[in-house]
Amino acid sequence: MAATAAQSPLTLIPLIEAELARLVGNGDDLLELACLDALFPTGKLLRPMLCIESARAVGGRAESVLSFASALECLHVASLVHDDIVDQDPMRRGRASTAERFGIAEALLAGDGLFTAGWVAMLRNSPAGSVLQASLAVAEAMHAMCRASMHETTIREDLSCGRSAVLEVIRGKTAALTGAACQAGAILAAATPGQAEDLRRYGELLGTAFQIRDDLLPYTAHDKMTGKHAISDVANRQPTLPVLLAYESADDHDRRLLTRVFHGDADPATAHRDLLDVLTRTGAIAEATRQAHDCAAQARAALDGLPSAERLAQLADLAVDRHR
Amino acid sequence: MAATAAQSPLTLIPLIEAELARLVGNGDDLLELACLDALFPTGKLLRPMLCIESARAVGGRAESVLSFASALECLHVASLVHDDIVDQDPMRRGRASTAERFGIAEALLAGDGLFTAGWVAMLRNSPAGSVLQASLAVAEAMHAMCRASMHETTIREDLSCGRSAVLEVIRGKTAALTGAACQAGAILAAATPGQAEDLRRYGELLGTAFQIRDDLLPYTAHDKMTGKHAISDVANRQPTLPVLLAYESADDHDRRLLTRVFHGDADPATAHRDLLDVLTRTGAIAEATRQAHDCAAQARAALDGLPSAERLAQLADLAVDRHR
Repeated sequence: MAATAAQSPLTLIPLIEAELARLVGNGDDLLELACLDALFPTGKLLRPMLCIESARAVGGRAESVLSFASALECLHVASLVHDDIVDQDPMRRGRASTAERFGIAEALLAGDGLFTAGWVAMLRNSPAGSVLQASLAVAEAMHAMCRASMHETTIREDLSCGRSAVLEVIRGKTAALTGAACQAGAILAAATPGQAEDLRRYGELLGTAFQIRDDLLPYTAHDKMTGKHAISDVANRQPTLPVLLAYESADDHDRRLLTRVFHGDADPATAHRDLLDVLTRTGAIAEATRQAHDCAAQARAALDGLPSAERLAQLADLAVDRHR
Repeated sequence: MAATAAQSPLTLIPLIEAELARLVGNGDDLLELACLDALFPTGKLLRPMLCIESARAVGGRAESVLSFASALECLHVASLVHDDIVDQDPMRRGRASTAERFGIAEALLAGDGLFTAGWVAMLRNSPAGSVLQASLAVAEAMHAMCRASMHETTIREDLSCGRSAVLEVIRGKTAALTGAACQAGAILAAATPGQAEDLRRYGELLGTAFQIRDDLLPYTAHDKMTGKHAISDVANRQPTLPVLLAYESADDHDRRLLTRVFHGDADPATAHRDLLDVLTRTGAIAEATRQAHDCAAQARAALDGLPSAERLAQLADLAVDRHR
């Protein structure tokens, strides 16, 4: 690990990928095949990176938390696989979702398989005291994620649910696990309770910044770069922060336009162009961007008391300054 | 707990039900409502009972493992909720399944919510060393369950898959978790490794006996008593042990009849009557019953070295001598 100590968190990617392959198996049966298909090619591996870099920020070593950290990616990808069933979304990371490729029943079981593979990998670590405490933090975050996903189904199509409802969904679906990833890394590296709490707070703020940026990508980047249909949030009628901010400050004409796009059957290209126009002229894109940067700045500030958190600060910048 | 010490395991039911209600919440949001709806009215609570009675069999106290034991019911019910999505089964325990009542997306998330509520409840226990070891045994069993559920999807409609394939599915889907429930109870009650291993083996054998008996119920009891459509295994084209045993020993005429029932669109009442006839005249019902009793006897034998295992022996008898 010494060779990577001073380098970018991105140098962790091959280590995490090798560990993921080890955790899930060789593809010897349909469960392993479907799990591997969902995991590879990998996404940004943000949660394992956060866990490892949090451990390093308090003096721990990457290899000591590698297996626990990689397990977090299994849990995260499991939630994506189930999410795509809930949203009936045929695309993920630029290709067909697991449900689309393997069928809904098989995708449901692949998600469950990734969840349980993740738990097995986490609980195989030692020492018992820290592993139990770190695993409990992760379990609580995963439960918050379920609650938020269910909440999200109740605000579908609801442009008047208010930004607080959407921010609550972001906290549950994204920030809880990024926070727990950092907290767990800290606990496993024998951080003080204060350090673990600072890192949890950093992770939650970074996760929020990351998700707001994610919701902006359809309006600031091309399909090919995000690997998602630009219009997919509209297609599944899920209000996001930029759309709600636009709705809050829109005049009657633009509100009617947003409602038509959200509830109507306009062709995707027209819907996307109309949405982009309204989000731009209401200042919603600028305001959401400002909020993302604000969260990233608060995340960096939460690192103040930590001995070596340069790479975590770097990750906070990457979270809001990206095009995919 | 002293009052219940000499009584039947059934006296544990109100304790477990109160704990389950505490674990899942009051029904304050849609997630809690759907989880409560899936849990209550409760089923047989076999896994929590096995966990508690295993702890008591090695000198532990029921109240010390009550929360961990009840969490196992959350995991089990989560798997049933997901199973009913996979099988597209509209009925469970005599009423509409969670997917039927709440919708597929909501049932998927309710299952995930029960899984995570279970993990939170398990990991909140102490001491860390035993809790981690017991939780790992449960996580491994849950992973085996996913693998077996996926395997099951690949033998749907396949009457020639052989009894070993069906027994492997039973081991993964039922026996792994009943075994882990006993093992976990033992570990939490500071059993010796040998006792924990004996109890795991008892739990696996009891689970196998229980499941074989379950698969026989459509042919030995009325719908109203099992709370399941007698024909539901046929409706979702899932071969069970009695059906496979019948197919193995059937003559050409009966094989054709079984194939027609399994692949055709015969009306359910006729299909069920035909199936019952073939299963009876091939001796499949008698043979499967014998195998269930054999497993139950082996389960009782695994208890030989344990100090106070009368109630576990009682549960082994109940597993094969029941009509619902």
